[in-house]
Amino acid sequence: MLSDIEISRQTPRRPIAEVAQSLGLAADEYHTVGDAKAKVQLQVLPRLASNPCGKFIVVTAVNPTPHGEGKTVTSIGLTQALHALNKRVCACLRQPSMGPVFGVKGGAAGGGYAQVVPMEELNLHLTGDIHAVTSAHNLAAAALDARLHHEIRLGAEAFWQQSGLRPLNIDPERLLWSRVMDHNDRALRQVTVGQGRNNGPEHSSSFTITAASELMAVLALSRDLQDMRQRIGKLLLAFDKDGQPITAEKLGVAGAMTAIMRQAIEPTLMQTLNGAPCLIHAGPFANIAHGNSSIIADEIALKLADYVVTEGGFGSDMGFEKFCNIKVRASGHAPDCAVLVVTLRALKSHAPKPPEDIGAVDLLALQQGFANLVWHLNNVRRYGLPVVVAINRFPQDTEQELAWLQQAAIAAGAADCVVSEAFSHGAAGALGLAQAVLRTLQQPAAFQPLYHPEAGLRASLATLAELGYGAAGVSLSTQAQQQLLEIQQLGADQLPVCIAKTPMSISHDPSLKGVPHDFVIPINELKLNAGAGFVTALAGNVMTMPGLGVTPGYLHIDIDAEGNICGL
Amino acid sequence: MLSDIEISRQTPRRPIAEVAQSLGLAADEYHTVGDAKAKVQLQVLPRLASNPCGKFIVVTAVNPTPHGEGKTVTSIGLTQALHALNKRVCACLRQPSMGPVFGVKGGAAGGGYAQVVPMEELNLHLTGDIHAVTSAHNLAAAALDARLHHEIRLGAEAFWQQSGLRPLNIDPERLLWSRVMDHNDRALRQVTVGQGRNNGPEHSSSFTITAASELMAVLALSRDLQDMRQRIGKLLLAFDKDGQPITAEKLGVAGAMTAIMRQAIEPTLMQTLNGAPCLIHAGPFANIAHGNSSIIADEIALKLADYVVTEGGFGSDMGFEKFCNIKVRASGHAPDCAVLVVTLRALKSHAPKPPEDIGAVDLLALQQGFANLVWHLNNVRRYGLPVVVAINRFPQDTEQELAWLQQAAIAAGAADCVVSEAFSHGAAGALGLAQAVLRTLQQPAAFQPLYHPEAGLRASLATLAELGYGAAGVSLSTQAQQQLLEIQQLGADQLPVCIAKTPMSISHDPSLKGVPHDFVIPINELKLNAGAGFVTALAGNVMTMPGLGVTPGYLHIDIDAEGNICGL
Repeated sequence: MLSDIEISRQTPRRPIAEVAQSLGLAADEYHTVGDAKAKVQLQVLPRLASNPCGKFIVVTAVNPTPHGEGKTVTSIGLTQALHALNKRVCACLRQPSMGPVFGVKGGAAGGGYAQVVPMEELNLHLTGDIHAVTSAHNLAAAALDARLHHEIRLGAEAFWQQSGLRPLNIDPERLLWSRVMDHNDRALRQVTVGQGRNNGPEHSSSFTITAASELMAVLALSRDLQDMRQRIGKLLLAFDKDGQPITAEKLGVAGAMTAIMRQAIEPTLMQTLNGAPCLIHAGPFANIAHGNSSIIADEIALKLADYVVTEGGFGSDMGFEKFCNIKVRASGHAPDCAVLVVTLRALKSHAPKPPEDIGAVDLLALQQGFANLVWHLNNVRRYGLPVVVAINRFPQDTEQELAWLQQAAIAAGAADCVVSEAFSHGAAGALGLAQAVLRTLQQPAAFQPLYHPEAGLRASLATLAELGYGAAGVSLSTQAQQQLLEIQQLGADQLPVCIAKTPMSISHDPSLKGVPHDFVIPINELKLNAGAGFVTALAGNVMTMPGLGVTPGYLHIDIDAEGNICGL
Repeated sequence: MLSDIEISRQTPRRPIAEVAQSLGLAADEYHTVGDAKAKVQLQVLPRLASNPCGKFIVVTAVNPTPHGEGKTVTSIGLTQALHALNKRVCACLRQPSMGPVFGVKGGAAGGGYAQVVPMEELNLHLTGDIHAVTSAHNLAAAALDARLHHEIRLGAEAFWQQSGLRPLNIDPERLLWSRVMDHNDRALRQVTVGQGRNNGPEHSSSFTITAASELMAVLALSRDLQDMRQRIGKLLLAFDKDGQPITAEKLGVAGAMTAIMRQAIEPTLMQTLNGAPCLIHAGPFANIAHGNSSIIADEIALKLADYVVTEGGFGSDMGFEKFCNIKVRASGHAPDCAVLVVTLRALKSHAPKPPEDIGAVDLLALQQGFANLVWHLNNVRRYGLPVVVAINRFPQDTEQELAWLQQAAIAAGAADCVVSEAFSHGAAGALGLAQAVLRTLQQPAAFQPLYHPEAGLRASLATLAELGYGAAGVSLSTQAQQQLLEIQQLGADQLPVCIAKTPMSISHDPSLKGVPHDFVIPINELKLNAGAGFVTALAGNVMTMPGLGVTPGYLHIDIDAEGNICGL
């Protein structure tokens, strides 16, 4: 079989303007960026406001394993199959971060014959949106440190006279805004900045990956440009010495940050290998951020297409939970059906003793690991959604194992369970899945969120831990308790929660496979994201800046003699 | 008068495809990015190889002052005027850095009625090239620190076994590659990275502004994609414990860095307010970098247009010197004529005692400051070029002062001296300048560089100091002497020199106005830029990361109710 990038390059593409027109965009509602990408202009939103919405399909998965579950492959394959069935369909996906692209994966545009193309554009800069988030985020950090520097250097009185700006009296011990970088860069996890003469004050700081920036969440959750401007104004950067919040608005940097993100708020239109439209927009991770593509892209897609396919990152405990409790709350667009992606090898690795050769036939291990699927099935059904289980087939998978899993999944409450071969066969390999989804969409959905933030943060955390993860409860560190008090004092106690935790387990502990029981979720830190509109809770040891491994993905990437990118 | 951004927004633009076609690009030699920008594909280069070259006009200036000399306004105004005279003209300019845009200037796209449009696109992301440089640069830093981390953590033997990669044995005391950010961020000038458990080794480091990244110079000086790939491979990142160089090639990151910059190597086509083509490409500063737009853009423009207007940053001691001694050497394209921009107020501030009201009539101060212009005139003529002096007129400038300066400049050796009112009147205000340039281009030019790098670095530095700045000589710090030895040992002694110094004085000392004498240039540090192909010499106290001032430019920038960017 050809490599992903070879398939991407060899497949003829529709001119993107044709894709835009077929989706129903007028000529002045998008502008092309070459012949493979287009930026959708937000002036389309008011025109579409009164259109009815299409059906909304959210793709999720069991807990991921190092073997890869193929959730994005399945999302794209489903989109391709619906398109092949002549349905008006649009996928809404996140833009990949360059961190994992150069770190582990080498790409995140689907794979095989289920891809968004050109994959090398999707995987690298695309139209620069992530760069814009990085730049706007870091402008706020530079502005905050500079203001602190000048007020200390000159003293409040002289600063006021010289600048005409009222001193902010920033507390150097309470700086909340770090910097970001769209790379896996371990050495930046913990840094000291402001060293050297005239560069201070010296202070500890950190970099997170851009995908975990609150600004990335702001981009993904904003309803329009003015909403984004307001949210950016609310970003909490520091406290002053009287304990009052210093926001981006107060620092006077919110307008410039918005200007930097002026183009980023426009979703990027691309296409699948068979020419179905895909809106790519925003790229928050689902473990350390809220893990879903943008509300604006969904809004456009739902008003223009009859079927919209999107996905939440990682398992249903992560991106799907945040989809339901954070994104739907902000967008008002509840899903109509869920697709739960699973692989035989993933379930086998959730067995108490996973087989050494994870690809080999092992019905016992499969049956033991099946509990993880059942947990996710029940988890998704708790939200009132019918669930189609999609088994992403690998070549070694046997009919016997597949057949067992299909009947077991249906017996466990799946509306349907079908084998998907989108990776190997593209649209043709996902026709069964598409038909199952179409059938399932005829069932009524009665979406309900897991918790009601109005009950307060403490209650939301407890419900999430107990119902969302099956934990015995939640415990807050001393620091987190203090932060909870502060958040309550700031009047932000009724915001939804964004848990940052490992995606490898339903619990906070990556070593607990299958369906863990009798664990307590330790919340080490709470962070108010007043602009994004949620409180991040760090559960367990979770890093907001990944590192490069021993054999990082970048080693294989290069340009060839014709100047094409290879090795992605 | 309207603000720059109002003028930019109110002026009708030609569709960029029409601009591309009028320049002579075939439909498959560019792709549009919206209707205002286009990326020029490098496949155009072989087609044009045998075309004759147009005339090459380089715009420079006297030493800048805080009042602004209007070099870019004059470059664009000249381009507009030549276009209005129905000449086939193209401007080649640098992309502005967001650092100064948010720090001081609020924009660098020209101004008034001499602008590249849309100015807010030029001033912010454009097509993401600077972001790509930032990203590729920082990938190398992350890769270097990660490799160091893993080799120390595992030990050489275990690292080799686990990764299959031969250990590099990086010397943690000799890491040469810092990180970059496209912002003015004082707090990042000196930092400690790698702090905290498992993130190390902890070490001192720094960030420079992206405009000073060696990769930016690589982008600007590469002849094509494969040349860029080779140059990136040569980037010197560190030494190993045996004193051997560790390059990006050796670290295995050069291919991925090139992939990140795959789109950045394509120049961006824009237009002036009156529809003349402009190629925007690369953005090195002229004080802390080599200060000129790209060789690739020049090559395309010279083969397609009869007149190409470009500029080197700051005064003729900075960007113009580097244009002649670094860029022309790499490109082989010598200029045919120079335009030297001056303002009355700039000369007055070079008087020994500048007037308090710099805009007021003061013939004495003008006559005293005139020496600075004479110095630059002689400096440019030393390179064998005829010089047109362009007086960028401000509203308060009197006819008497202008007339005195015109005759004095011609008496001092200018081929011509004309008043330009491009800021207020666009093309019409620069017609006289354009005609003077056309006349001057009929004179023969006999370009010669200032020094021959083959004589060795020590000799090049001495010639640059003595002939290039009129210094009594050059003195190397102990550190610089040591570095000179190392550079000689690495066989890089015959590279040209890129001086990093203040642009505010011909000397290294910003307080020395007019024409300083009897000073010695102190070289504090020498840095081999093996990829860019020059040695950077830090003269005096020069910062490679600017800081935000007390009232930074970002304060005024916002979006308005219609979503337009304002305040640039």
